[in-house]
Amino acid sequence: MNKPVAATLDTGIKLVRNVGSFNFGRGAIADLAGHVESRRVSAKSTGADERVIFVIDQFFKGRSDILARLPRRHDDVVLIVDTTNEPTTAGIDSLVAEVRAVGVSVPATIVGFGGGITLDTAKAIANLLTNPGSAADYQGWDLVKNPAVHKIGVPTISGTGAEATRTCVMTNKATGLKLGMNSDFTVFNHLVLDPDLTATVPRDQYFFTGMDAYIHCIEALAGSYRNAVGDAYSHETINLCQKVFLGDDMMSDQSREDLMVASYLGGSAIATSYVGVVHPFSAGLSVVLGIHHCVANCITMRAMEEFYPEAFTEFWTAVDRQGVVVPEGVARSLTDEQYKSLYDSTVVHSKPLTNALGEDYKNTLTFDKVVELFKMM
Amino acid sequence: MNKPVAATLDTGIKLVRNVGSFNFGRGAIADLAGHVESRRVSAKSTGADERVIFVIDQFFKGRSDILARLPRRHDDVVLIVDTTNEPTTAGIDSLVAEVRAVGVSVPATIVGFGGGITLDTAKAIANLLTNPGSAADYQGWDLVKNPAVHKIGVPTISGTGAEATRTCVMTNKATGLKLGMNSDFTVFNHLVLDPDLTATVPRDQYFFTGMDAYIHCIEALAGSYRNAVGDAYSHETINLCQKVFLGDDMMSDQSREDLMVASYLGGSAIATSYVGVVHPFSAGLSVVLGIHHCVANCITMRAMEEFYPEAFTEFWTAVDRQGVVVPEGVARSLTDEQYKSLYDSTVVHSKPLTNALGEDYKNTLTFDKVVELFKMM
Repeated sequence: MNKPVAATLDTGIKLVRNVGSFNFGRGAIADLAGHVESRRVSAKSTGADERVIFVIDQFFKGRSDILARLPRRHDDVVLIVDTTNEPTTAGIDSLVAEVRAVGVSVPATIVGFGGGITLDTAKAIANLLTNPGSAADYQGWDLVKNPAVHKIGVPTISGTGAEATRTCVMTNKATGLKLGMNSDFTVFNHLVLDPDLTATVPRDQYFFTGMDAYIHCIEALAGSYRNAVGDAYSHETINLCQKVFLGDDMMSDQSREDLMVASYLGGSAIATSYVGVVHPFSAGLSVVLGIHHCVANCITMRAMEEFYPEAFTEFWTAVDRQGVVVPEGVARSLTDEQYKSLYDSTVVHSKPLTNALGEDYKNTLTFDKVVELFKMM
Repeated sequence: MNKPVAATLDTGIKLVRNVGSFNFGRGAIADLAGHVESRRVSAKSTGADERVIFVIDQFFKGRSDILARLPRRHDDVVLIVDTTNEPTTAGIDSLVAEVRAVGVSVPATIVGFGGGITLDTAKAIANLLTNPGSAADYQGWDLVKNPAVHKIGVPTISGTGAEATRTCVMTNKATGLKLGMNSDFTVFNHLVLDPDLTATVPRDQYFFTGMDAYIHCIEALAGSYRNAVGDAYSHETINLCQKVFLGDDMMSDQSREDLMVASYLGGSAIATSYVGVVHPFSAGLSVVLGIHHCVANCITMRAMEEFYPEAFTEFWTAVDRQGVVVPEGVARSLTDEQYKSLYDSTVVHSKPLTNALGEDYKNTLTFDKVVELFKMM
């Protein structure tokens, strides 16, 4: 690991909102039914709506073996989330409209079942059902006024930490703003962390997504803005990721359990720390070339040796060890205009870049330097 | 650290209830006023009682500089907790009666301000104000039926993890039963983790209490019953304790911050794991000789070389390094009857001893062996 810089500054982040509770371990999905049922019973006792909204990753469309394990009733609402692209404010608004169209205003609970996009979508819907207006109105910090609908998260892939964070990332296509609803109300009430659910994830996707937790934490620990809580979560997340990705089999039962814990702790770390150089470059790849966040992080790692030398070595050792193929050359032969866009959408991230390189980070990340780094990817 | 045993068994603990939220960092105590005020405002809006109960460690009696920082109103209830002995069910009942005697039935919130005894006392009172009967009725697992009064914990010493657990340990003097109210309702709604509050703790007490977190976690990681969540919290707790106690100054600003995080994470670990050989022997010292839990743990470590060789060395290195005096010889010249009591009150702890030594632990811990170990202390 990279040595922490000698003098650290305080992140200024002083308040942590935890997920209410969680079930964990192999087969934990069996406990979902009890949690959902107790919500229905409680709704019934007050004359409220007993129906439940299931927000399900399109990955499971047609996977009747998996879907049969969800405690659905005939009158529940099922929303399938298209994960081709990351969530948009308009997309969230239309899902909320779909819920209202069938006459549900406040369901007994919302169950998010899937990857980071699906979990974030469930969180956003839960906020909007109890708050007026549209998703774009709540992009920012602490803009959500009313407590959200009760919600349960069931991650089916590990790494993003979406199950633990107080945000739900989405892009407003009209303004180009990519920003979540950062709010205490965005945090899940309950999680079901069942590593058996990640057994069918394609290997490359499993690696890319899992490494999101690792990369965030190596960035956080190498930064200037730090605090003891974020550092502790980051250290343990990295320990677990090393165990999983430098071990023999990243998808063994034990590894999938460890990575699910790493993802949860990494998500807890996110709430109190800042990223560094990787995420801004990765964001550039996402915005300009439409590459998904987790694979974009891994592609970015090709150019990170000078910033994170130890993590660079460790990361590429893990790639070799797990036999994963990270896409290469995606930003090698682009137009001048595209490089200009890449530069702009990278250096705009002043907070993480200041965290990593200091306030004069643009002296390091000149236009030519940024282009050179993208060409290394 | 001790190597984990090769084959591990599942703890069977599958549900974690988190503390709702926490403020942390130096000076975080300043945020307490806002949290208390928002509870008063919310109580007022529904016509409920706006008064607050402050449950304060006797350590702060007369410390007007500290007490002035608590957001007290003239009509609030202040209970001073006698920490000479650990909590009893009768003691809790009489504090609850004291609250009711001044006409408070459900206060806006309860603030626990102090060490583990004080925090556990605040948790127990919060449960009893909304549940009929007496404290002894709720010793056990999930016996508390109604949600507790809202409560805020402010630890002023680090190590026990009482701020994070779902129990509040107490002894029923009539039956001799030492058992807490294990319940989701026992968990604090909010914590204020301000390491400045631990600056005035006497050095020896600071060490003994801090080592409670370390010892629990080394026991948990050496046991047979394990899970990935508990392991992760334990690993990071140990990392932080090593940093604090093997570093130059266990009471530096940074160390006190790290130890406060270790205590919180160690408490989180407790919820999903089992202890081992240390805690049963320590319990024997508490029950038979009245020695407080944390110092009893440290005394017990004198006899733990054969069970935890690496932790033994590390622990006594830390004692030397921090210049702490651990009492010695407390169980060297006792009566036969006392040794019999010590033996009984140690081997009764079958769960942790099975975790550490296997189901036939009494073959290892014969009467003579147990006495020999106590004499080593």
